Amino acid sequence: MRLALNADLGESYGHYTLGDDAGLCPLIGAANVACGMHAGDPNTMAAAVELTRRHGVSLGAHPGFNDLWGFGRRPLAMSPAEIEYLVAYQIGALQAVAALKGVRVTHVKPHGALNGMAHDDAGIAMAIGRAIRAVDRDLIYVANLGSQMSRAGAELGLKVANECYADRVYDRSGKIMPRSAPDAVLDDPERVVAQVLAFLELGGIGRFGDWTIEGRIDTICIHGDGPNAVAIATRLVAELTHTGIELVPLARLDF
Amino acid sequence: MRLALNADLGESYGHYTLGDDAGLCPLIGAANVACGMHAGDPNTMAAAVELTRRHGVSLGAHPGFNDLWGFGRRPLAMSPAEIEYLVAYQIGALQAVAALKGVRVTHVKPHGALNGMAHDDAGIAMAIGRAIRAVDRDLIYVANLGSQMSRAGAELGLKVANECYADRVYDRSGKIMPRSAPDAVLDDPERVVAQVLAFLELGGIGRFGDWTIEGRIDTICIHGDGPNAVAIATRLVAELTHTGIELVPLARLDF
Amino acid sequence: MRLALNADLGESYGHYTLGDDAGLCPLIGAANVACGMHAGDPNTMAAAVELTRRHGVSLGAHPGFNDLWGFGRRPLAMSPAEIEYLVAYQIGALQAVAALKGVRVTHVKPHGALNGMAHDDAGIAMAIGRAIRAVDRDLIYVANLGSQMSRAGAELGLKVANECYADRVYDRSGKIMPRSAPDAVLDDPERVVAQVLAFLELGGIGRFGDWTIEGRIDTICIHGDGPNAVAIATRLVAELTHTGIELVPLARLDF
Amino acid sequence: MRLALNADLGESYGHYTLGDDAGLCPLIGAANVACGMHAGDPNTMAAAVELTRRHGVSLGAHPGFNDLWGFGRRPLAMSPAEIEYLVAYQIGALQAVAALKGVRVTHVKPHGALNGMAHDDAGIAMAIGRAIRAVDRDLIYVANLGSQMSRAGAELGLKVANECYADRVYDRSGKIMPRSAPDAVLDDPERVVAQVLAFLELGGIGRFGDWTIEGRIDTICIHGDGPNAVAIATRLVAELTHTGIELVPLARLDF
Repeated sequence: MRLALNADLGESYGHYTLGDDAGLCPLIGAANVACGMHAGDPNTMAAAVELTRRHGVSLGAHPGFNDLWGFGRRPLAMSPAEIEYLVAYQIGALQAVAALKGVRVTHVKPHGALNGMAHDDAGIAMAIGRAIRAVDRDLIYVANLGSQMSRAGAELGLKVANECYADRVYDRSGKIMPRSAPDAVLDDPERVVAQVLAFLELGGIGRFGDWTIEGRIDTICIHGDGPNAVAIATRLVAELTHTGIELVPLARLDF
Repeated sequence: MRLALNADLGESYGHYTLGDDAGLCPLIGAANVACGMHAGDPNTMAAAVELTRRHGVSLGAHPGFNDLWGFGRRPLAMSPAEIEYLVAYQIGALQAVAALKGVRVTHVKPHGALNGMAHDDAGIAMAIGRAIRAVDRDLIYVANLGSQMSRAGAELGLKVANECYADRVYDRSGKIMPRSAPDAVLDDPERVVAQVLAFLELGGIGRFGDWTIEGRIDTICIHGDGPNAVAIATRLVAELTHTGIELVPLARLDF
Repeated sequence: MRLALNADLGESYGHYTLGDDAGLCPLIGAANVACGMHAGDPNTMAAAVELTRRHGVSLGAHPGFNDLWGFGRRPLAMSPAEIEYLVAYQIGALQAVAALKGVRVTHVKPHGALNGMAHDDAGIAMAIGRAIRAVDRDLIYVANLGSQMSRAGAELGLKVANECYADRVYDRSGKIMPRSAPDAVLDDPERVVAQVLAFLELGGIGRFGDWTIEGRIDTICIHGDGPNAVAIATRLVAELTHTGIELVPLARLDF
Repeated sequence: MRLALNADLGESYGHYTLGDDAGLCPLIGAANVACGMHAGDPNTMAAAVELTRRHGVSLGAHPGFNDLWGFGRRPLAMSPAEIEYLVAYQIGALQAVAALKGVRVTHVKPHGALNGMAHDDAGIAMAIGRAIRAVDRDLIYVANLGSQMSRAGAELGLKVANECYADRVYDRSGKIMPRSAPDAVLDDPERVVAQVLAFLELGGIGRFGDWTIEGRIDTICIHGDGPNAVAIATRLVAELTHTGIELVPLARLDF
């Protein structure tokens, strides 16, 4: 079995630093790089691209809402056409910065509230998909397992990587609990590893003996902005490798 | 003789409208579209791209400093590397929005203070050129006639379109006077037409019997944000056509 | 009967101009000045303050969400505490700019989506009221007639000016229809005048023979960003004066 | 001898955290709080105000250029009038947020590039002073010892607190070296303490046996964003107290 671990990189901004990109990048197979709307700027994008180049990690755009103050975590009412433009803008911006380093963008993963809205809303999920297809139809659409994004990607003929979260708790609908909910974010490495192994055994997300939403898991997200992100990632890599899972760059998976 | 008229389009932002894009676009051969830093947003970019598509006008990126409040007209200290990333970011963003409309970006013209700084500063002019070359080496670098931009473009093997301004007064160094100087902006159509015809006869910018900086003129800029921009452009098109000059899209010129 | 007409002023930003402040200011009794979040900047605020000073118009803060791109018209999830800080920030900013011109801020009117949310949500309406009270308990809280804002202001012991809109259509709940609804904005001076006279006769907002939400009307809002805003305001002033209504600065009303 | 230590607080923004405000606040006598232009937002301002209240620290506004990306460290061309509005805006915003916590703003210290420009430029130094005077003529103008700010404050009849930097190296003109210069920032607690003690003995800034710019030192700035800021501050407090210097809140000094 082959999997790619993914994490958000390049979420700093100007004088502000967020996350330990240098520590995390060697451990992952796909970096989702913020593109200047909810976080990131041309300099942080270039630095993140350079890290992915050095470590052979697949480079992805991580488009979000234009809300730096809210870090893209607040829903914003936008029409599907506006979302198409917003997402295309961010993918293209990263492609061009990546070109300066001789790197190609190979996937796209929506960020924060945009991701949450696209999970349930077919119109938004399709708008993101159309933006991806127009910019480069070989780009992989990273989509929550069981979401409208998965469906939209398939309908548009795009490569879809089904994703689940290592460190976020799911509700029975298959959606991650909001960060504001109690215990919504797992920060104990044991629990993170246990959840991931359970998902892989279940063949989807869910809880043993309770509920399952089945689906092929292609990529597992670990968050890079927690205080022990590198420790969690290190532990997860070790456990998965020990279990016989091959961790690869996202773009090397078959779609 | 063949020339392209160019103008800045897509300089609106959100709820704010600037310039009469719909009135100006049919009159020009090249549109320089703001890319979200000094002006513009993904929606205005898409609208400007759509106008260029409809009217067969060459589409260009118009990268500027990240200073919406100052409209990119205030110099900002940035290193050459930072400028490379900033310019690449904006070109790529426009390319991707343009892809949604099936249009290609074919030129790049720096905006405002970035343009003014690149005129004199070889380091900045080269940084812009390297960004252009990395993103797409077929992009035309629109450069002030006689500037470091012209030299940088040539040194990097890029197509260079030499530009002069129809409605801005030059000093003897071949640089446009700052907007704050008295009479620095021509808003009388007669004077605009007279200046352009004089430049074409001189074979460069300058003043008859006084000074000339020679060079091939490929493209003439008219500003779109003045109250009578469309009237001036209409008049200029008529005069130039009457003089036997063929006005073409910028990308159709030979380089 | 005495009334104050109010309008939003100072909604320009940097290089972008919005509305005809100079044309509108002489016609109104209260100016709601944007404070740099959804629109406005320190320069536009100073210019708007100067206009109110010259014309003897009551000066008010017009706080909105921190969303320049969306002009503060998109709802944003913020806690009551965050809204208190956000509103206080904007009132204080205007007070200080006004101090440079020797003018006092005398009222506060929430803008756009913040206004719409405070209409129905007691928590938000109270948060705005607490910000007003902490900064200056003599400030008038301009509140939609029949809204939670009116109630919050009364509960907090603030002066409340009940407002209705001259040029917006109401639904039966007493809320203005969203701008996106068909015919939600009246731009025919006849209809605007007719609606205002009907409200004054009804003693509240509503429709004759259909529904009424009664309440004292203190101030009537006219929008300044429509193309014929000055024409509408001129007409309305003439009609109201003709009807015997005394139009006064908002701060001269009795509370 | 009585002195106030001052430090910049509230320089976080949205999701981004900068500096150890909680660790530093108990050690200082004056907090310069970012006001939402170069850093800070209404939430961070409220949190910083609350810290100053709890620890009895004098609260000051720390106005800077409207350049979050550059953290207010890049010079921007603005007219004196524009700077008056910009500074007043930020002071007022903090006053209002502070009012929510029952705290008064008692000083103003310009930030970053604005501070550097005001050091030499009488027009800018006076503009800042006029903003302070208009908003509250009891506010203390924190000014680099020997700068145009000191002169402007005196000329305007304001209280002036002369400041020197504990951890920045000065050139012979009495100006701090730019951060980009080698060794411009002292991060060794021994050297910081030594420089402060030398300044106090010299009765101004300078170097023993070399040069001195004399002047009463009222307040000493320590930077809060270095990795060992709290350690340096702790050491400095201990040494100064040991030397018999009384460290007090800035507003308790006599002017």
